[in-house]
Amino acid sequence: MIFGIRATIEAVMAGRELDKIFIRRDMGGDLAHELTNLLLERNIPFQRVPLEKLNRLTMKNHQGVVAFTSSIEYQSLENLIPMLYEQGRDPFLVLLDGVTDVRNFGAIARTAECAGVDAVVVPSKGAAAGNADAVKTSAGALNIIPVCRTSSIHNAVSYLQKCGVRVIAASEKATHSYTDADWHGPIALVMGAEDVGIAPDILRIVDDMVAIPVLGKIQSLNVSVAAGIMIYEALKSR
Amino acid sequence: MIFGIRATIEAVMAGRELDKIFIRRDMGGDLAHELTNLLLERNIPFQRVPLEKLNRLTMKNHQGVVAFTSSIEYQSLENLIPMLYEQGRDPFLVLLDGVTDVRNFGAIARTAECAGVDAVVVPSKGAAAGNADAVKTSAGALNIIPVCRTSSIHNAVSYLQKCGVRVIAASEKATHSYTDADWHGPIALVMGAEDVGIAPDILRIVDDMVAIPVLGKIQSLNVSVAAGIMIYEALKSR
Repeated sequence: MIFGIRATIEAVMAGRELDKIFIRRDMGGDLAHELTNLLLERNIPFQRVPLEKLNRLTMKNHQGVVAFTSSIEYQSLENLIPMLYEQGRDPFLVLLDGVTDVRNFGAIARTAECAGVDAVVVPSKGAAAGNADAVKTSAGALNIIPVCRTSSIHNAVSYLQKCGVRVIAASEKATHSYTDADWHGPIALVMGAEDVGIAPDILRIVDDMVAIPVLGKIQSLNVSVAAGIMIYEALKSR
Repeated sequence: MIFGIRATIEAVMAGRELDKIFIRRDMGGDLAHELTNLLLERNIPFQRVPLEKLNRLTMKNHQGVVAFTSSIEYQSLENLIPMLYEQGRDPFLVLLDGVTDVRNFGAIARTAECAGVDAVVVPSKGAAAGNADAVKTSAGALNIIPVCRTSSIHNAVSYLQKCGVRVIAASEKATHSYTDADWHGPIALVMGAEDVGIAPDILRIVDDMVAIPVLGKIQSLNVSVAAGIMIYEALKSR
């Protein structure tokens, strides 16, 4: 953790990876303004919280700002995609829309690394923390596979489509099976939140929607298992 | 938890599902003998532990015996298999050899239930506890899909083979891919421990050994993800 407004600004300027920042709800002033502008510009998530929350986090003199450093180095999708094309590769990406469980995040990154996926894309808000637990569950994969953080998965989908990437969403609402999808060429697989699935505004713009058939009473798979089944189906076709 | 030697004997006689029993290391006497015989006969795991361990578990008067009740109703493999054949079904089972993580156990049961697997088979020793956390991670699947407890996975494999079930082991040592296996007919898939995989004495007797290809540096998938990929590959062929 990093404490204090100046220390946090310096950490951001120095390019240190930050997972999340808590700022005292009623904090004003030029420096606070400078910090929030910087965070917005760099896509680093922050949250306004009551003073009591900050006091519970640390006994140190936090001056209204507590920043959590990340165990992952994030990359930019806009840098990665052209690089993959230049290398003559067909991009194969996995996008996570609202997967908040750290162990699911880690397990998906591990499967993705094993299957040769080029990157995992997560939103800057509403995603699992890129903390030590996530890295541990990923068996270290989160330190190997590129992880891109984006301000919005919806925008990332649009951007990828402009780059010629076909976006396939995993959704229980889909009418056809993942085994019938075309997994060739540049593709991005979107997996949704553990409880509510993929946001409707994203489902509206994707190129294809596929489901994993379920026979039993439970009717839904764990998201990291579902991701594994689809990623390996894609790998077989590629 | 159940405390005391008589209370535990009564619970076993009444058919209550027990997950594990701790018995004071130096406990003797007729009742203790009766209890251990009963536990051996019913395949209920127990462990001799120092008095201090029991004292740490509870402040109550445990009289040398503490039993953990199970959230799962276990079934017998010897009852289940003939029943499946009588129903005209080709049995499809998943055997877990030393999967000790409660969340992996729950996730595999969930996938198995979704894929229409007939039962999950676990050993009475060295398995994940069938506790409330396992049931929660399974999204309730552990209360739906039959779970069989066996004194030895090795013996269960032999028994299944005698019943005409082909046993396929998931092992990184396998020379061919899971996509090349024959998943038709009566089959049992064996998944191994998170760290060491399947025990060598089991690998020696199985009918087939298959691997999931890995391209990256991590070289191994999470066991619940690997189980999901194989179970769904089997489901496609069946």
